[in-house]
Amino acid sequence: MDGTKIKLLEKMPKLNNPIFIEGLPGVGNIGRIAVGYLLEELKAKKFAELFSSHFMPFVLVHQSSAVHVLKNEFYYWKSDKPKGRDIIFLIGDSQSVDPIGHYEIVETILDFIEQLGVKDIITTAGLSVQNRGVSENLIGVVTDPKVIQKYKNQGIDFDAGSKVGTIIGASGLLLGLGRYRGMGGMCLLGQTAVVPEIPDPKTAEVVLKTLIKILNVKIDLSELKDKIKEMESFMKKIQKVQTKALSQMLAEEMKEPKASKEDLKYIG
Amino acid sequence: MDGTKIKLLEKMPKLNNPIFIEGLPGVGNIGRIAVGYLLEELKAKKFAELFSSHFMPFVLVHQSSAVHVLKNEFYYWKSDKPKGRDIIFLIGDSQSVDPIGHYEIVETILDFIEQLGVKDIITTAGLSVQNRGVSENLIGVVTDPKVIQKYKNQGIDFDAGSKVGTIIGASGLLLGLGRYRGMGGMCLLGQTAVVPEIPDPKTAEVVLKTLIKILNVKIDLSELKDKIKEMESFMKKIQKVQTKALSQMLAEEMKEPKASKEDLKYIG
Amino acid sequence: MDGTKIKLLEKMPKLNNPIFIEGLPGVGNIGRIAVGYLLEELKAKKFAELFSSHFMPFVLVHQSSAVHVLKNEFYYWKSDKPKGRDIIFLIGDSQSVDPIGHYEIVETILDFIEQLGVKDIITTAGLSVQNRGVSENLIGVVTDPKVIQKYKNQGIDFDAGSKVGTIIGASGLLLGLGRYRGMGGMCLLGQTAVVPEIPDPKTAEVVLKTLIKILNVKIDLSELKDKIKEMESFMKKIQKVQTKALSQMLAEEMKEPKASKEDLKYIG
Amino acid sequence: MDGTKIKLLEKMPKLNNPIFIEGLPGVGNIGRIAVGYLLEELKAKKFAELFSSHFMPFVLVHQSSAVHVLKNEFYYWKSDKPKGRDIIFLIGDSQSVDPIGHYEIVETILDFIEQLGVKDIITTAGLSVQNRGVSENLIGVVTDPKVIQKYKNQGIDFDAGSKVGTIIGASGLLLGLGRYRGMGGMCLLGQTAVVPEIPDPKTAEVVLKTLIKILNVKIDLSELKDKIKEMESFMKKIQKVQTKALSQMLAEEMKEPKASKEDLKYIG
Repeated sequence: MDGTKIKLLEKMPKLNNPIFIEGLPGVGNIGRIAVGYLLEELKAKKFAELFSSHFMPFVLVHQSSAVHVLKNEFYYWKSDKPKGRDIIFLIGDSQSVDPIGHYEIVETILDFIEQLGVKDIITTAGLSVQNRGVSENLIGVVTDPKVIQKYKNQGIDFDAGSKVGTIIGASGLLLGLGRYRGMGGMCLLGQTAVVPEIPDPKTAEVVLKTLIKILNVKIDLSELKDKIKEMESFMKKIQKVQTKALSQMLAEEMKEPKASKEDLKYIG
Repeated sequence: MDGTKIKLLEKMPKLNNPIFIEGLPGVGNIGRIAVGYLLEELKAKKFAELFSSHFMPFVLVHQSSAVHVLKNEFYYWKSDKPKGRDIIFLIGDSQSVDPIGHYEIVETILDFIEQLGVKDIITTAGLSVQNRGVSENLIGVVTDPKVIQKYKNQGIDFDAGSKVGTIIGASGLLLGLGRYRGMGGMCLLGQTAVVPEIPDPKTAEVVLKTLIKILNVKIDLSELKDKIKEMESFMKKIQKVQTKALSQMLAEEMKEPKASKEDLKYIG
Repeated sequence: MDGTKIKLLEKMPKLNNPIFIEGLPGVGNIGRIAVGYLLEELKAKKFAELFSSHFMPFVLVHQSSAVHVLKNEFYYWKSDKPKGRDIIFLIGDSQSVDPIGHYEIVETILDFIEQLGVKDIITTAGLSVQNRGVSENLIGVVTDPKVIQKYKNQGIDFDAGSKVGTIIGASGLLLGLGRYRGMGGMCLLGQTAVVPEIPDPKTAEVVLKTLIKILNVKIDLSELKDKIKEMESFMKKIQKVQTKALSQMLAEEMKEPKASKEDLKYIG
Repeated sequence: MDGTKIKLLEKMPKLNNPIFIEGLPGVGNIGRIAVGYLLEELKAKKFAELFSSHFMPFVLVHQSSAVHVLKNEFYYWKSDKPKGRDIIFLIGDSQSVDPIGHYEIVETILDFIEQLGVKDIITTAGLSVQNRGVSENLIGVVTDPKVIQKYKNQGIDFDAGSKVGTIIGASGLLLGLGRYRGMGGMCLLGQTAVVPEIPDPKTAEVVLKTLIKILNVKIDLSELKDKIKEMESFMKKIQKVQTKALSQMLAEEMKEPKASKEDLKYIG
């Protein structure tokens, strides 16, 4: 696997005018928590996995002592209403660790969901606001100003132009590059005051409730607190091992020069 | 998009002996400002866009709240004189963020303009002169000493050999690699005392006026001051968000080691 | 060689239900020492070499003054028992020096051993435990909890989930990615208190003895101490020159900025 | 040009059992000076150029104000003796700036000289010895101990195993990887006490004289001092601009975080 590949777990599903919801890890893991809860409650079905050489080169070890290679996962949910729209979800352990990989992974995702007939995209992300008050309002960034009409009754703040500079990674590029394939959509940004690495379940809940309204699905929220706590602890573990691995890699590189103050022979 | 691609917005235009003018971002954004004003005043037509995985992996957010993926843009202008030469312009948001990408992007551009029949290239750039007086003179660097003859009556200083060491990025490589495809040309260097990140509209104006003379086009300069101010503020925004994004990315990487002073288990 | 290639030294061997044992360099060089001794004592036959542009770009100089390009090596051993299982060993000088390379190299290895009929993998690694007591117990990480049954009578500690966060590099990815090709297996982790760069022959001996039991082979251990000493000094040399080269490369890069405090002309 | 390419300037020459001599930039530019003088005095003919996206992404500006893209150059010299061996020389401005590029460039060179019938290689390099006395003796590193016989009467010190750890870049990899194509050869290492970036013409002279003996060619050494001085000043210029460019690039990257202490909004 030099590059990025998607492995189908069943044959390509036939979906009715599906909407695509992305919830990959990011600031406060806001999207990851919201989308993770949503697909679990809907009992969405996993049907494909994405692997990439742009993820960290390690495996995680599960509580069962089994290895877990980093990946993103695609789920689908078929609407229970006649002619209702189906949904495709994307969640995962990781985004690209290098700049070039983001483009490659996002184009691979777009190729795939284009085949599945996706015309509408909603991505999720966290907006870290450190020097000013946090608002509970979600901010919406769109592929095209026309999209604002579509979502205007959900209490989303569409004055993003003066509040948001850039959207890094998949949440932004899926919209920015999807637009050239005729896909329209929105990035839902939850505002958070915490440092980017700490999960922010409270803001995730706001995103979740807005997604429920937009998708017009019925979700039991009674287990929300517990589930979020559970996911949170799992995510903290991933975070911790990623941090450990990264710091260890860096430590390795830092250590090597020190060991070589002796007689240096250089050749080139 | 693993790599660099050009997307045509209309069918390939037929141009008469076109001259190619490059104005991508660089020191003082001198070329970007000059070429941007020129193509706007000429009402040149955008006909192609270039995307690359070597640009920063984020989208900008416009004032309208719509996303904007980083790209370069090709415009053409058809001469209003019988048998007059047509012009192709290249401007954009970004250059490659890694060394290898510069070669890939420049070769992609050269492949494209070669098909359009380009034999002459003018690139633009800023020369940062910090420890000596700034001259208003533009410095010219050429693909071949013979080219000097062609532009010798424009007040350009062709004693570049002793004043310029290297030209980094597209402005240099377009000439250096274009030469092997039978293209000749010049890089117009405006001298600037400001730090490379700050736009320098004054020097940009000198470049603009020289381009007008060389191209022998009529341009209304009355709106120049206003337009430059306008563009300047837009470019400052791009600059700011790029800086923010970059610093945030670096901050992310810096933060991770700190979080891991606890019990470290390393495996390899 | 842009990428990773395997060069066969003879025609593809026909092996009987072979088990694959990996012993590439890592923490304490534990796997490298154990597997190196094992294949030498079994007089296993080298039949293929792997080269990669993701190894350090230098050659080592042998005591004979001959050059040695970095590589990994495949050996096979044919069982001396009727219908006994054959073994494939992988040892080497290096792992990838960049994150992306790990995936490329591991996929190249998996493609190769899949052709050879491998269904079972055992990888070896060191677990650096700095802030708590070292146990002599090996820790086992598996592709699937079912594998634990298979190796449960070897005194391996399978409570890895709470002790091991991640496994970096080939030892982890061979299991994590091999699983998607129908391969099952285990990573044997020796615990070590030494810093990752120092070979740890004592822990290597524990790994070796466990491998002997699992593989059910007869190995003369009387020369172990001497051989380990010998290998250790060779590995220290590799370690030393790699460290020197790396530090020299870094020194090169560090030096360059210093030399340029004079009149700086920047162009872009 | 994504990657590395060789451009022929004439049709592929037919050469008689050619020996290949490499003199790319490295420690003290020892090989570059020696091989540069040799091919100039022999009036060897340039017949091919190598370009790579792994060279620095800039052009140099010549004294004539013309641009110069970084490249390596192939020359050939036809023996003036009946049945005498022909020679291929490789010199250049640069080696790869990233680790992966070294492998790609060296394999491209080997593919090319293999087609030209090369079986013998001599590479040149400098060995920086800082903490011990410098010897005038050249040190020889070989592809195979048998090669030592061939060059044993040239006063070369073949006790390299205890003096040389690694050879970084093309000088080492051409031997290490060439060996797998049936090419044999030697790296001639001149010992130098100067810091790696400063040209060392004195040691270069020793290498030159040894090459003259090995190749059995007649070279007028009377202009040596002058030519070396001339080349030296040219090489210092290249060195200087490369250093400037590199430091400027680094400075750019360093500057960006500083500029962003204001209100930081991060999105991911």
